[in-house]
Amino acid sequence: MSGRLVVVGLGPGDERFLTPQAAEALAVAEVLYGYEPYLARVPECPGQTRHASDNREELGRARAALEHASSGARVAMVSGGDPGVFAMAAAVIEAIEAGPAKWRALDIEVVPGITAMLAVAAKAGAPLGHDFCAISLSDNLKPWDLVERRVRLAAEAGFVIAFYNPVSKARPWQLGTAFDLLRGVLPAGTPVMFGHAVGRVDERLAVVPLGEARSDMADMATCIIIGSAETRVVEREGMPPLVYSPRSARAAG
Amino acid sequence: MSGRLVVVGLGPGDERFLTPQAAEALAVAEVLYGYEPYLARVPECPGQTRHASDNREELGRARAALEHASSGARVAMVSGGDPGVFAMAAAVIEAIEAGPAKWRALDIEVVPGITAMLAVAAKAGAPLGHDFCAISLSDNLKPWDLVERRVRLAAEAGFVIAFYNPVSKARPWQLGTAFDLLRGVLPAGTPVMFGHAVGRVDERLAVVPLGEARSDMADMATCIIIGSAETRVVEREGMPPLVYSPRSARAAG
Repeated sequence: MSGRLVVVGLGPGDERFLTPQAAEALAVAEVLYGYEPYLARVPECPGQTRHASDNREELGRARAALEHASSGARVAMVSGGDPGVFAMAAAVIEAIEAGPAKWRALDIEVVPGITAMLAVAAKAGAPLGHDFCAISLSDNLKPWDLVERRVRLAAEAGFVIAFYNPVSKARPWQLGTAFDLLRGVLPAGTPVMFGHAVGRVDERLAVVPLGEARSDMADMATCIIIGSAETRVVEREGMPPLVYSPRSARAAG
Repeated sequence: MSGRLVVVGLGPGDERFLTPQAAEALAVAEVLYGYEPYLARVPECPGQTRHASDNREELGRARAALEHASSGARVAMVSGGDPGVFAMAAAVIEAIEAGPAKWRALDIEVVPGITAMLAVAAKAGAPLGHDFCAISLSDNLKPWDLVERRVRLAAEAGFVIAFYNPVSKARPWQLGTAFDLLRGVLPAGTPVMFGHAVGRVDERLAVVPLGEARSDMADMATCIIIGSAETRVVEREGMPPLVYSPRSARAAG
């Protein structure tokens, strides 16, 4: 019997964001793999076993799950947000490419989820209403020069920019450097949205102009959206502002 | 009594993608607004009224919904995919900014959904596993020069690129021009994914090398993902290939 591995996106946190497709995939799995805080979000199911691992062990976790699936088991790998956006799906396929032939014979499925930038954008209004990009600010897996180059080209192209993995203990200065770089390209009034744990009980959204954006406004649970020069803030009395990027754009770019 | 307008993302089609948050928002609404095919996906609710409109009337639809909410009603505006990505949320906030003061006093909420590129990516594997961008290829609301500039800069920056609104009857040549432009920057073997109606009963995914990508492979219901130079295709016997963008990148960009 051929095994099955489903990589499941849980969305940003709360079960309100868990799609029926994802809930079903979790319910029928015999074995769950995942980073411990993500596994903890999944309701216990009788007879289901769980293998929790540390955040840094993505490839090892992928290999263990594939090997388990090869024994004929129905395995689910849980991932926060969308598994295809800076998350487990790429690690699983990378492991398949480098692994034994039997892993290519497995039934592999990726179940999408609400990725962090969509939840932060919804909370802020519609800052991703025009062309945008998503950049992981982590230089664990790519050189920092390349991150800087992408951030600069993205701002010059007029993209709204979402930063994933903006800071960590091992990467304390990168976000500040990226803000400095952006201040050289974009107006100081460009809105920057710091979405902390959006979709969870401790969610918090702050909107500040780029001129005042600081790296200590973010932590590991923050997704940041930087507007383009066209992004606007609509103030409302007694309520948070609505931030949006107009659907139309002028020629300048 | 102050009214309420919720802009709700239905996801790519099938109700398997509809989040519990979106389902709840639709169930408690007294009035639904939306483009007709999206409204048709929402189960009928007793006592709920519906206002369907044509696809091209986004601002008018937004204004009608806001005016209705101003009367104290609980109104939901339905949107395909995620309402914040080339969809209704930006149109609603644009209308609020230009509209009467009472619209700013409304309770406005945006409920995120699975946007097309996430569904297409999940079907293909994990092509968005590294830095990526989303570009609307429509030049109805921005000059074509700006589209070309963004496509070129995105490819030069090494982003995986998702094209929304790739073609329409009124825009027959733009996609072919964009492919030609990309062929000048990216290797001919770069994988291009055409996701037609992904998440619906007639879904279809085709993966072709950039050298062979043609505009007649897309229609209005297609979302296209163009890999970066790093994106890889893992072939499998008797099964569709798995396409992924490795989490790590080399210095070149």
